[in-house]
Amino acid sequence: MDHIENDDKYQGLTVNKGVVSPPTVNPYLKKNLRAKKSLYSANEYVEGILKGDITMLSQAVTLIESTLPEHYSLAQEVIEKVLPYSGNSVRIGITGVPGAGKSTSIDSFGMHLMKQNKKLAVLAIDPSSERSKGSILGDKTRMERLAVQKNVFVRPSPSAGSLGGVARKTRETIVLCEAAGFDTVFVETVGVGQSETAVHSMVDFFLLIQLSGTGDELQGIKRGIMEMADGIVINKADGSNIDKAQLAAAQFRNALHLFPPTESGWVPKVKTYSGYFDLGIKEIFDMIDEYFSFVKETGFFEFKRQQQSKYWMYQTIDEKIREHFYENEEIKQLLQEKERLVLDSKLSSFVAAKEVLKVYYNK
Amino acid sequence: MDHIENDDKYQGLTVNKGVVSPPTVNPYLKKNLRAKKSLYSANEYVEGILKGDITMLSQAVTLIESTLPEHYSLAQEVIEKVLPYSGNSVRIGITGVPGAGKSTSIDSFGMHLMKQNKKLAVLAIDPSSERSKGSILGDKTRMERLAVQKNVFVRPSPSAGSLGGVARKTRETIVLCEAAGFDTVFVETVGVGQSETAVHSMVDFFLLIQLSGTGDELQGIKRGIMEMADGIVINKADGSNIDKAQLAAAQFRNALHLFPPTESGWVPKVKTYSGYFDLGIKEIFDMIDEYFSFVKETGFFEFKRQQQSKYWMYQTIDEKIREHFYENEEIKQLLQEKERLVLDSKLSSFVAAKEVLKVYYNK
Repeated sequence: MDHIENDDKYQGLTVNKGVVSPPTVNPYLKKNLRAKKSLYSANEYVEGILKGDITMLSQAVTLIESTLPEHYSLAQEVIEKVLPYSGNSVRIGITGVPGAGKSTSIDSFGMHLMKQNKKLAVLAIDPSSERSKGSILGDKTRMERLAVQKNVFVRPSPSAGSLGGVARKTRETIVLCEAAGFDTVFVETVGVGQSETAVHSMVDFFLLIQLSGTGDELQGIKRGIMEMADGIVINKADGSNIDKAQLAAAQFRNALHLFPPTESGWVPKVKTYSGYFDLGIKEIFDMIDEYFSFVKETGFFEFKRQQQSKYWMYQTIDEKIREHFYENEEIKQLLQEKERLVLDSKLSSFVAAKEVLKVYYNK
Repeated sequence: MDHIENDDKYQGLTVNKGVVSPPTVNPYLKKNLRAKKSLYSANEYVEGILKGDITMLSQAVTLIESTLPEHYSLAQEVIEKVLPYSGNSVRIGITGVPGAGKSTSIDSFGMHLMKQNKKLAVLAIDPSSERSKGSILGDKTRMERLAVQKNVFVRPSPSAGSLGGVARKTRETIVLCEAAGFDTVFVETVGVGQSETAVHSMVDFFLLIQLSGTGDELQGIKRGIMEMADGIVINKADGSNIDKAQLAAAQFRNALHLFPPTESGWVPKVKTYSGYFDLGIKEIFDMIDEYFSFVKETGFFEFKRQQQSKYWMYQTIDEKIREHFYENEEIKQLLQEKERLVLDSKLSSFVAAKEVLKVYYNK
């Protein structure tokens, strides 16, 4: 039985130093304490997860995130075994630029779910390079109320690896969380990178948080994200800002009207709310409920889930065969040389590619 | 010297039976006649292309499209040799759903360029499966005026292969056309498939043709395309339809206003025109000229071209390593089995992927 080595990386984070209180009921902290001990067998993890044991869940997620091959294998074994018990959650992707109030909103959304006795897992898929731009980890201390709920499991994005790798880990974590009885999963991204496509491919509903106004607030949102949204919610609709928020909502509605219909046939909706003052939250979840009724009736829900599973199988394969190529030392060096020639218009893109491929396959 | 075998596939097309007249000056027909003869050496092709010989250009493009390895090698040699003479064109991507009037518009745009003594190449990148939905080949007869211009080279999309392969061939064809002295290149897609990203990665300016009205006309446009556009042009702004077109233009302007800024810093513009009546065409090209002045001044033009070359190098590599994997017979069969298990939730996406990869790399 091994000590989980890479768990140490979580020790110094603000999440452990923040306003979270009392620390003993913070599931995240509990994980850290527990993880100091040793590994269990796959069956022990499975049993623990199915009983809803947060410590076991946390440690299994740490295994998923581990770079050690033996951890990876153990994690895969656990995932396979709990797979039949997964799938029973409402998976919601939440995105929005830094400053849109994502953490406050998630806190507010989560507290709404707590009143309905839901169990909520909050995950993120932004790799480390993007994390400082406003992802969940830095903002953890802003989710003050959720942090002390025992029915909430908050897990920051794994810091290591490519977006593809991080996304895969997040998707595996969803499986474990569902098996542990979490009936609602939030997957958060910062809305400025490439992560949204990955999130879109693992959630049922994609929620975009916006601010009122049509100027600077939109600067950070990557092109194309708006068209992915099943719902757009305008935050900070409170006090003197209500009119502005409603105007923004009207503008977004007009814009959505110009978009082609979604694959599901669902017409994306626009709502206003205030995460800080807990206003309009019920209406957001009514919209989400309405969406789920709609897609379950049309069969799109099941169809999309199946497509996503298939997507991830091929996505994983593509990631691995690319990795096998691009991580090869000889290839790496050759690519650098050829890229230079291509940028200088001394070699065509296609001949450059051909020459590198020849070296790879002749080895 | 080989006979170009796959050239026969073009024989039965409507393009040769249509209203095109007189047939002898149709460069496309000339190509077919010429291609019946034998292959030249790479140097002969290069010389011919650099002299602007359309027959030689056509035949070299046919080599690019050929599936025979010796044709492919010869084509690559030609491309390498003319590469230093390429790059001097204005590359414009044109997309729009069937019914938007793409062919009539391209005819009208092209005639505008003819008046300025330009040389125009019209290419397409929709693989065959999408072609019947309204791509250039079926519509060739609607480009009545362009078809008889000697300064116009029209080439339908190659019919064989994956989108990646077709896109690569189109990009290689751009190189040859530029070396042959074509100063403007249109690359057309139907706007309903995956092709737009590929076009976007090979053109300087992306033009979206729309119709007035906000209803059914938009049904076919794939989500995300609108956000790629550097210019949106509303067709059929003529007669009693002018007000409607102008209203549509205003709506699109509002919608664009909500989008985040483009990478280039250019603010996409919306124009109305009539392809059928040649109205507003100058204004469209004024907009395109303005774009080019802008991006050449900011340096974005050169930057984007370099990024595109780099993109195509890596795109080609990815395509080939995927092909090597997915075209493997043993892998194909295995994938089918595993996919079934994944769709039935009997195997996780990740374990399925892992098992197939294991077979591939252990061989």
